[in-house]
Amino acid sequence: MPTLDRHDDVFVLNLGDTENRFHPDWLDAVGRALDQVEQADGPKALVTTATGKFFSNGLDLDWLGANGDRLPGYAATVQNLLARFLALAVPTVAALPGHTFAAGAMLALAHDFRVMRADRGFWCLPEVNIGIPFTPGMSALIQSRLTPQVAHEAMTTGRRYGGAEALRAGIVDHAVAEDAVDATATRIAATLAPNAGQTLGTIKSRMYAPVLAALRGK
Amino acid sequence: MPTLDRHDDVFVLNLGDTENRFHPDWLDAVGRALDQVEQADGPKALVTTATGKFFSNGLDLDWLGANGDRLPGYAATVQNLLARFLALAVPTVAALPGHTFAAGAMLALAHDFRVMRADRGFWCLPEVNIGIPFTPGMSALIQSRLTPQVAHEAMTTGRRYGGAEALRAGIVDHAVAEDAVDATATRIAATLAPNAGQTLGTIKSRMYAPVLAALRGK
Amino acid sequence: MPTLDRHDDVFVLNLGDTENRFHPDWLDAVGRALDQVEQADGPKALVTTATGKFFSNGLDLDWLGANGDRLPGYAATVQNLLARFLALAVPTVAALPGHTFAAGAMLALAHDFRVMRADRGFWCLPEVNIGIPFTPGMSALIQSRLTPQVAHEAMTTGRRYGGAEALRAGIVDHAVAEDAVDATATRIAATLAPNAGQTLGTIKSRMYAPVLAALRGK
Repeated sequence: MPTLDRHDDVFVLNLGDTENRFHPDWLDAVGRALDQVEQADGPKALVTTATGKFFSNGLDLDWLGANGDRLPGYAATVQNLLARFLALAVPTVAALPGHTFAAGAMLALAHDFRVMRADRGFWCLPEVNIGIPFTPGMSALIQSRLTPQVAHEAMTTGRRYGGAEALRAGIVDHAVAEDAVDATATRIAATLAPNAGQTLGTIKSRMYAPVLAALRGK
Repeated sequence: MPTLDRHDDVFVLNLGDTENRFHPDWLDAVGRALDQVEQADGPKALVTTATGKFFSNGLDLDWLGANGDRLPGYAATVQNLLARFLALAVPTVAALPGHTFAAGAMLALAHDFRVMRADRGFWCLPEVNIGIPFTPGMSALIQSRLTPQVAHEAMTTGRRYGGAEALRAGIVDHAVAEDAVDATATRIAATLAPNAGQTLGTIKSRMYAPVLAALRGK
Repeated sequence: MPTLDRHDDVFVLNLGDTENRFHPDWLDAVGRALDQVEQADGPKALVTTATGKFFSNGLDLDWLGANGDRLPGYAATVQNLLARFLALAVPTVAALPGHTFAAGAMLALAHDFRVMRADRGFWCLPEVNIGIPFTPGMSALIQSRLTPQVAHEAMTTGRRYGGAEALRAGIVDHAVAEDAVDATATRIAATLAPNAGQTLGTIKSRMYAPVLAALRGK
């Protein structure tokens, strides 16, 4: 389950050491972590990371298979969480130690910046391959953070981008050695921590107003 | 006139061996080709190419000069065809063996990917030079597929991009030797053929919803 | 105060030799210069430059501090001027000899192209650092001219981009030696002068229709 720690101005949200799929309990825990980050005073920033070879593989398809009647509420919760990250009044950096797939890849894009392990692991939107189209909100999120060419290729082909490829495509901002992923993300976050506050929240909310409206179903 | 062939999973639409301007009969033939592609079962992809030194020079200005009263219907037909390519539930690759101008350049952009001859021929939007502004739908199409800087330069200056320049600008995805244009496009299309289907169509329709609405005059 | 000169087809608007902040009188003078450019016949283009180490530092915060009650009208005037540059039916090139900050950086983005001094001076949006969020119109302007990654970094971190960095980020189109800034901008402008006219104005107005509506408060 997700855990939250703080080191000086930097909160570190660890998504877990499994595939870190979006089980309802997992979503609750992440949401409570964001509550804590939002309530803290002073300079602050957030690094979201994970332990092992997955950042996150996205939706919990096993749970959904057993709880199909709860799909609408579940989808709304996921989209609201993505919106919350995207507009967070706190600088955010995703540290990607491994596979970052589907809604996990979208969660990474909802951060201000991304640091990915260079030598192993993929960032991938496999939706076209598994027959699940993006919701309008998810589509808007992805398209708002990538160049048109990269969004098109990622969304229509399911291409798997390794770290160096993801860097060249502008999907991530840094691709570094495995043992430097968290440190690089933390260093960036610490530098940006003084920017936390309502101005930052307003800037992000206005930049992504149409995306946020689509994610929130408005 | 346009012809359609099939090689395994890949349909090949040849736009002709002239300037391949959008005469009403030509538009009808292309539309019927898309009907055939859409009706086929199983994995499939589409390569659109041409014979000779033109991919297409766009609108048939000679025909329009003689049929000015039919402009509104003609423009709607052209825009609907661009919309149909853009949202096609089939992977599409444009093979550009030569000049790709004006609405011909837009038709290329409505494909998923583009392969251009490296050493000769230009991709160009000459509208500003000939005094014909882009319709809102055409403008939206171009802007949805290019970075802001490239869209601005292409649309406001009429710059002619050779293959290598078009590759650097992200207008095309590959620039290759003349005799490799069709083969490269076909190889990419064959790889993507398993993605054909309703999921792909929905993904594209949602990605480009505002563009499609503008092209369809809605 | 701003001055306007003409050299053959190229008008040169010099924003001044101070920080060139947007005082109401300065805004009036720039607006009158645009009137003159618009009224001229034949091929024409506009280079906007400045003398010394500032292109412009943006809003006149001293004046605003003493005239807080006039903020709404002042903000509308600034936004209308940005919209006017963005949609001008004349090719425009900004020559950046030095610091280009905040609304000055937005003014530069409202030109068709930008030439920046390579070795000194910064292009910067410090709004997040000084606690002033972008208006929706300003946000839309910046986002319409930069890639998503660059817009996000520039707007959420206040990063200062030197000439070479601004070139790599696509914020400017050329970074050259100090004594080549004006000459490069003038050369580009002269080349584009034949494109001046209503077609160009319509092309830009349609490309940036949502941005213009947001800047004009509609």
